[in-house]
Amino acid sequence: MSYFDHISPIDRPGADTSSALGFRHYDPARLVLGKRMDEHLRLAVCYWHNFVWPGTDMFGSGTFHRPWHESGDPLQRAREKADAAFDFFKRLGTPFYTFHDTDVAPEGGSLSEYVSNLSAMVDVLEAKQSQAGVKLLWGTANLFSHPRYAAGAASSPQPEVFACAATQVFHAMAATHRLGGANYVLWGGREGYDTLLNTDLRRERAQLGRFFQMVVEHKHKIGFKGTILIEPKPQEPTKHQYDYDTATVFGFLKEFGLEQEIKVNLEANHATLAGHSFHHEVATAISLGVFGSIDANRGDPQNGWDTDQFPNSVEELTLVMYEILRHGGFTTGGFNFDTKVRRQSSDPADLFHGHIGAIDALALALERAAKMIERDALAEFKAKRYAGWDASFGKQILEGGYTLESLSQEAVKRDLRPAHASGQQEYLENLVNAYIYG
Amino acid sequence: MSYFDHISPIDRPGADTSSALGFRHYDPARLVLGKRMDEHLRLAVCYWHNFVWPGTDMFGSGTFHRPWHESGDPLQRAREKADAAFDFFKRLGTPFYTFHDTDVAPEGGSLSEYVSNLSAMVDVLEAKQSQAGVKLLWGTANLFSHPRYAAGAASSPQPEVFACAATQVFHAMAATHRLGGANYVLWGGREGYDTLLNTDLRRERAQLGRFFQMVVEHKHKIGFKGTILIEPKPQEPTKHQYDYDTATVFGFLKEFGLEQEIKVNLEANHATLAGHSFHHEVATAISLGVFGSIDANRGDPQNGWDTDQFPNSVEELTLVMYEILRHGGFTTGGFNFDTKVRRQSSDPADLFHGHIGAIDALALALERAAKMIERDALAEFKAKRYAGWDASFGKQILEGGYTLESLSQEAVKRDLRPAHASGQQEYLENLVNAYIYG
Amino acid sequence: MSYFDHISPIDRPGADTSSALGFRHYDPARLVLGKRMDEHLRLAVCYWHNFVWPGTDMFGSGTFHRPWHESGDPLQRAREKADAAFDFFKRLGTPFYTFHDTDVAPEGGSLSEYVSNLSAMVDVLEAKQSQAGVKLLWGTANLFSHPRYAAGAASSPQPEVFACAATQVFHAMAATHRLGGANYVLWGGREGYDTLLNTDLRRERAQLGRFFQMVVEHKHKIGFKGTILIEPKPQEPTKHQYDYDTATVFGFLKEFGLEQEIKVNLEANHATLAGHSFHHEVATAISLGVFGSIDANRGDPQNGWDTDQFPNSVEELTLVMYEILRHGGFTTGGFNFDTKVRRQSSDPADLFHGHIGAIDALALALERAAKMIERDALAEFKAKRYAGWDASFGKQILEGGYTLESLSQEAVKRDLRPAHASGQQEYLENLVNAYIYG
Amino acid sequence: MSYFDHISPIDRPGADTSSALGFRHYDPARLVLGKRMDEHLRLAVCYWHNFVWPGTDMFGSGTFHRPWHESGDPLQRAREKADAAFDFFKRLGTPFYTFHDTDVAPEGGSLSEYVSNLSAMVDVLEAKQSQAGVKLLWGTANLFSHPRYAAGAASSPQPEVFACAATQVFHAMAATHRLGGANYVLWGGREGYDTLLNTDLRRERAQLGRFFQMVVEHKHKIGFKGTILIEPKPQEPTKHQYDYDTATVFGFLKEFGLEQEIKVNLEANHATLAGHSFHHEVATAISLGVFGSIDANRGDPQNGWDTDQFPNSVEELTLVMYEILRHGGFTTGGFNFDTKVRRQSSDPADLFHGHIGAIDALALALERAAKMIERDALAEFKAKRYAGWDASFGKQILEGGYTLESLSQEAVKRDLRPAHASGQQEYLENLVNAYIYG
Repeated sequence: MSYFDHISPIDRPGADTSSALGFRHYDPARLVLGKRMDEHLRLAVCYWHNFVWPGTDMFGSGTFHRPWHESGDPLQRAREKADAAFDFFKRLGTPFYTFHDTDVAPEGGSLSEYVSNLSAMVDVLEAKQSQAGVKLLWGTANLFSHPRYAAGAASSPQPEVFACAATQVFHAMAATHRLGGANYVLWGGREGYDTLLNTDLRRERAQLGRFFQMVVEHKHKIGFKGTILIEPKPQEPTKHQYDYDTATVFGFLKEFGLEQEIKVNLEANHATLAGHSFHHEVATAISLGVFGSIDANRGDPQNGWDTDQFPNSVEELTLVMYEILRHGGFTTGGFNFDTKVRRQSSDPADLFHGHIGAIDALALALERAAKMIERDALAEFKAKRYAGWDASFGKQILEGGYTLESLSQEAVKRDLRPAHASGQQEYLENLVNAYIYG
Repeated sequence: MSYFDHISPIDRPGADTSSALGFRHYDPARLVLGKRMDEHLRLAVCYWHNFVWPGTDMFGSGTFHRPWHESGDPLQRAREKADAAFDFFKRLGTPFYTFHDTDVAPEGGSLSEYVSNLSAMVDVLEAKQSQAGVKLLWGTANLFSHPRYAAGAASSPQPEVFACAATQVFHAMAATHRLGGANYVLWGGREGYDTLLNTDLRRERAQLGRFFQMVVEHKHKIGFKGTILIEPKPQEPTKHQYDYDTATVFGFLKEFGLEQEIKVNLEANHATLAGHSFHHEVATAISLGVFGSIDANRGDPQNGWDTDQFPNSVEELTLVMYEILRHGGFTTGGFNFDTKVRRQSSDPADLFHGHIGAIDALALALERAAKMIERDALAEFKAKRYAGWDASFGKQILEGGYTLESLSQEAVKRDLRPAHASGQQEYLENLVNAYIYG
Repeated sequence: MSYFDHISPIDRPGADTSSALGFRHYDPARLVLGKRMDEHLRLAVCYWHNFVWPGTDMFGSGTFHRPWHESGDPLQRAREKADAAFDFFKRLGTPFYTFHDTDVAPEGGSLSEYVSNLSAMVDVLEAKQSQAGVKLLWGTANLFSHPRYAAGAASSPQPEVFACAATQVFHAMAATHRLGGANYVLWGGREGYDTLLNTDLRRERAQLGRFFQMVVEHKHKIGFKGTILIEPKPQEPTKHQYDYDTATVFGFLKEFGLEQEIKVNLEANHATLAGHSFHHEVATAISLGVFGSIDANRGDPQNGWDTDQFPNSVEELTLVMYEILRHGGFTTGGFNFDTKVRRQSSDPADLFHGHIGAIDALALALERAAKMIERDALAEFKAKRYAGWDASFGKQILEGGYTLESLSQEAVKRDLRPAHASGQQEYLENLVNAYIYG
Repeated sequence: MSYFDHISPIDRPGADTSSALGFRHYDPARLVLGKRMDEHLRLAVCYWHNFVWPGTDMFGSGTFHRPWHESGDPLQRAREKADAAFDFFKRLGTPFYTFHDTDVAPEGGSLSEYVSNLSAMVDVLEAKQSQAGVKLLWGTANLFSHPRYAAGAASSPQPEVFACAATQVFHAMAATHRLGGANYVLWGGREGYDTLLNTDLRRERAQLGRFFQMVVEHKHKIGFKGTILIEPKPQEPTKHQYDYDTATVFGFLKEFGLEQEIKVNLEANHATLAGHSFHHEVATAISLGVFGSIDANRGDPQNGWDTDQFPNSVEELTLVMYEILRHGGFTTGGFNFDTKVRRQSSDPADLFHGHIGAIDALALALERAAKMIERDALAEFKAKRYAGWDASFGKQILEGGYTLESLSQEAVKRDLRPAHASGQQEYLENLVNAYIYG
């Protein structure tokens, strides 16, 4: 009997969902801008928050009481966890999932046990993927929970720790490759510092750079066609994480010659913790050519930590979706729900409510953003606003036709007195609301 | 008669300063690590906050009533302002000052008036520098106050605005060059956005990149030997500034091939607004090879805007000073007080109190940091902590002796089980306090 | 000829407004829950941001160039400003406006000039209100712009400053009373501190308490039937304002015995600067019995100052509106737009765009919230969740039927092992989205 | 053999402590302002962070490996933990400690097991206190870790949970009373909300009010002479905690008539999370007459969660100490170190380093603050600044000698034109630094 057997099947749009579980807006097969909704969104459910986390926080013990968290043979429990996970994926109908190595397989007491456990579980996952028709959006390695990683993984002061991290990434990449993963993610859990007093920034950056280069070299060696993704986060668990935000990661990639090889996996909550809007991070990544995938969640604007709540602001998601659609949509990326139900949401049904609400919010955002694209008033506005740069004077400036001196002389000679033109922000904001609310 | 004539001369250390104005710790000629204190600190007073700002804020009118702010012939008022400024510099005894073009000269009603006003005032400044024995740490151009810059200067949607900005920078660089300035600063006042809805990030970055290239080309053309500096700031006045922080600026410089040409001018208050410690920004800039100069001030940890208060935390400044000393000290940079007295501090004497306190705090920090360097326990600690990376295994990893696969195999074969070693943060923090408090 | 003559008349819902100005959702006469939309919302336009502010910020001069800001006879300019303001109110069709004394009348060079100027302008406003059919939601006095208020008004270290503040409030209350104002607002602009080093918190609180008592006594003496409102704000312009947030104001009112006499005027942007959601501040004020009125605007989640942007999040406003409707709606309060167009929004039309978008957002929120009330699933959920407190055991506890000891004994005797019940946050969030998005 | 047997004895001031453990500044018997240092500071070490927490965080497992955390008989492990704790207290030489009920005794599987475990451990603690000469600063009950408290304790939607909380507080108060505790603390761990959608603020406040009243009634009944303390915290673990900050708690106490009965226990890190300086919270509590005790720690200014680091800023602590000394010092309160070593600080010695550094910082702050009191230039400055309020006009205003109307008439008649007087913030800041740095 499955953990979710008492949950009624998820309704599709049209059904009355006031008291039951069901989608109101998401319909995988509906065409939007000529493409199926599920192909646009490429939705993924994560393993860790849903099936690994027991509902603890720093001030309290677990509230969830999932059966596979009880004591017992670790590999057997891992199989039961996989049963529950794939049952959940199938009931929800999302096409993808994501995992860390140690989410799916017991860590074991040594590296060789780790290798053998992971190998055993990859067999299980492979079979389950095939049975459930669920695919892997990306895999990753947990390089932050084990005590050996307390001071970082690749950026650890001990090369032996770097070697353990390499071991995990080597096997997690192999697992991802074998399971047909579309991407491989590097989240620098503790790649950062707690205090500058004991930290050599230059050394640690060099270590991290070499690690990423090794990953990229390995990817090509094994013929993995997916994308390597770095996930920016500004802090937590460390005081300062090296992959602070998109702009920081971009500079890092340039420094180590990796900007053609690695893209970013952007998380909404990490964006806001870094002092940026989610919209900003997406638009920035696209403008820098490093946009890859999304960890769809939200933070709490009043709380200074990673709350990983389900995204539910159609207003915010519409702007993000608009940027992604204008960019041409995802290639290998997708929307992964790096989200957890609140610790108080202790019913199995809450796992469904969380995902369903988030999926519906994305579906609504997709529809609204598609309307924005169909008659793209924002793009028209921008085209007019920057028209001077497409005309002769602007082009000449950008193409090197002027030196500082010759341009200055020209400006004085022409007695330039450009008047400020309204940026019409309020008008544009109303326009967006008109797309959203009709 | 001078505005400051009623101010008694500033005492030097040793004097009883309980009721009068005087330095308790700063002594320009005292040798620290074999170098004069004034050569270490290279202190500069800014023109704008002290002599241009009338004590307004967004909620109230000016409280200062400086005589040169009264109505009258602009050039005459500019000369009186220069009289007051240089009198202040001389009384305070600081070796450097800094200015924006429009701080020292009236903006005029056209670019040609601007050029002629600035030219007239550069004559005045040149004479005053020579009389007062005061030097120029850096000059810059104000590309944010005039209404034409409401949507940015180099990143404006109008190329004509870019051309006006080029005009100002051309002349401000000329002025800086002629006045013997040690650096030229680019602060991207409104180079950023208020809303993404009307903004093309890629275009604006390209414009900004071309602008900086023009500045660098011009620098070489005229033989200016000073350093070109970008001053990072995350937001304010715009919602998001492109030069957000050091890491962002570094990525930008790499993108436009300017990382050998431009360095950063770091401001403490900008660091904290960006979510970083001042210490972090300095250490990051040094580790990336782009450290240039400092705008010494402090923000209010509870307020989310640029308060530009005088730096007075010896605890914070000691760590910053330690990084700078270890780096070898300033080359062309220095400590510029980008600071303003509070709007309530309406007495002329308050301008002295603010600077004297800040200078003493820097002097104390310099002495404490010098002790940290003399027996550098932090460096020793770090050397031990990272020793593994200087040994054979670590070196081999960094120098490309392993692939991900071979390293993984080695780790499993050697059954690596590295134990976490304490980072001893509390011990190190106590050590720093021991340097500060004896 | 009016400043707004070139603006086309504002369309009502149903018209195609893609290129023109018009409401899409706001229809004053439409009945919602049996009451006209305009009676629910009680919309007000503020004088200061729209007609007084020239588009300056701390880094730049004005971009707006309103004709009444040009130099000239102050009273004549004040009349022209009133012409423009009332023309704007009428075109927009909002029923209320709000002002500070010094928004509408020149400050003059002395208190007696102030009194006479205000008196002259009240005559003008009275006539204009009658002509335009516009009413006064509230008046207030500007106790923060004049240099004498640099250290506070009622909380100033100088009793003479307190007396000047009393003079302004006396006359602003008289003006509000004569103009039929529905409320009188006290915003403690600089009632706070910049540094604790020169501040006596107990003294300043006593001064402020006495001031508010004098205002309340005076209200009763003159028979003013409106509500006295305090507007909480955490900081800016001062480092710390005494009316930090609703909970702080409530404690203050209790301390001075004013909790039955004074209510709060809540501003969205002030809520978020205080670390609260707007929803929180409204729900808190209602639960404490001090809810009065709303300054409808929004801040920028990434910026740490009062941006006073137009509210446009229907998602946020729906929750706020739900609380207000459940509370029974406004009595004397209303939604005042304490909002300003961006400094870049320099066209007269932008003033309309800003208000129209905000009004439409409120209209949408009202409709959505009304649906939430009609079948109030949240209230039903809460009733069930707290049912134990309406049953015998819960009632006994609350009504004093147990001591700590007897309750402890009972718990042990009954071997209580209450299981946590899910809070179903995700389900409830989806429910709200279902109300908003259908 | 004790866990700390390999730690060398702690040196007293004067010894060379560069490589060993020792105080540099703290000397319990040294007289400051005529009182012993230890009597001023009343230092306490907490049980939970040092002896209960295994070095986990939300992203990783424990790094500390304390022997008493290994599996085994819970009561036996609790005794071993107590052995280690009192050995630590004695070695460190701090006079007080603090605990939660479930820190010292196993929670058990039922309330009656809880009661019996706690009772057994109180016997142990009583004996140990006597042997070690260590006293109890305060006890408290853990009402947030058990899953039943997921939705709050006194503010839970279930009265049965309230009853369990009452049981714990009843027994924790009894334990505190018997062990001679100087205070009893109420920290509202989960008394707050995660979402307003399922929360009835008025109900929950009423429940909390009744709970506190029961505690106060019980205190008097059993003759406990200590102080009841509430510890404000703005958020974490809940989104919003009801005891947000001192001002909020004060309003709450007034609402329930408890302001004479309950005082506040202020934590530095909670102050900064609430958007206040530590100095502000202390000064506010004193000015409101509710100052009780201190949880001495510090947060990280860049991190938005409770980092509970050891306090080490003498600059910050000096200002706090100055307020406390001016207030007359602690009565029943003291400085409790609610602090934890970093997760990376995994050596037993790190526990000593953390406390020693913090104690030395407090000792330095005490000495500096004593100098500030001896010749209290700040108090003199304030007396002059507010002198007008001690003179006739000011007194009359405060004592009700004027109405708003009569004061307004007086102001106009006297043609008041008060000039702003400088607040001299920079001068005062320098003065404080002169006290700190000589």
